[in-house]
Amino acid sequence: MTATATSNTSTIANELVNLCRQGRNDDAIDRFYSRDIVSIESVGTPEMPAEIKGIDAVKKKNDWWTENNEVHVVQVNGPFVGDDQFAVQYTFDTTFKPTGQRTQLSEMALYRLKDGKIVEEQFFYHIPGA
Amino acid sequence: MTATATSNTSTIANELVNLCRQGRNDDAIDRFYSRDIVSIESVGTPEMPAEIKGIDAVKKKNDWWTENNEVHVVQVNGPFVGDDQFAVQYTFDTTFKPTGQRTQLSEMALYRLKDGKIVEEQFFYHIPGA
Repeated sequence: MTATATSNTSTIANELVNLCRQGRNDDAIDRFYSRDIVSIESVGTPEMPAEIKGIDAVKKKNDWWTENNEVHVVQVNGPFVGDDQFAVQYTFDTTFKPTGQRTQLSEMALYRLKDGKIVEEQFFYHIPGA
Repeated sequence: MTATATSNTSTIANELVNLCRQGRNDDAIDRFYSRDIVSIESVGTPEMPAEIKGIDAVKKKNDWWTENNEVHVVQVNGPFVGDDQFAVQYTFDTTFKPTGQRTQLSEMALYRLKDGKIVEEQFFYHIPGA
């Protein structure tokens, strides 16, 4: 680990978290995501495969999520900073509009940087009471 | 966030990771865990509730896991350092001895510090191919 690498990672991590706390996730993507971003969910569904590639596919996924979920609370905890990776904890209280089911869910996102851009995001889940 | 808090967190996080890389998890628990540690799994089982309290219960849980799993590979990635919290990614390739089922599993552990001791550990899962 080098001090410079960690400092760059810390700067991007803190700026991403600040944008997400303001609900400006789209701005965070435009600013920090590589065009070749790989996004890895824990579990795929028929509508959404577990691994998707490219910034347009990630934006489409986020739009789908926003359109289909009523968000009651989002909490952003972190960032947690490594060398060329950082993690953020997101806690959601949402209602999935198609079914009306309300869910509390906490996830860790682990981001990997290359040449100052986020090239991979991977999600890990905790479902309270599951 | 204060520089001192982050520095203390970084020191403990790196020492814990170093011990875990050597397979010395018991030493990490003895050295850094509060006697009143709270350990939160994502999902409970009849043998092991989702939330357990106290250093003896955590050691018992770890012993149960070690006795019941044949470990092929463990990878430790991190640490990822925040103010009074840090995260570590663990990737396991294990066979659960009672069933013979082999599983690849990746998890993020999020640790919370108070007065220089780990008072909470929480686990978030990613199961490739699930």
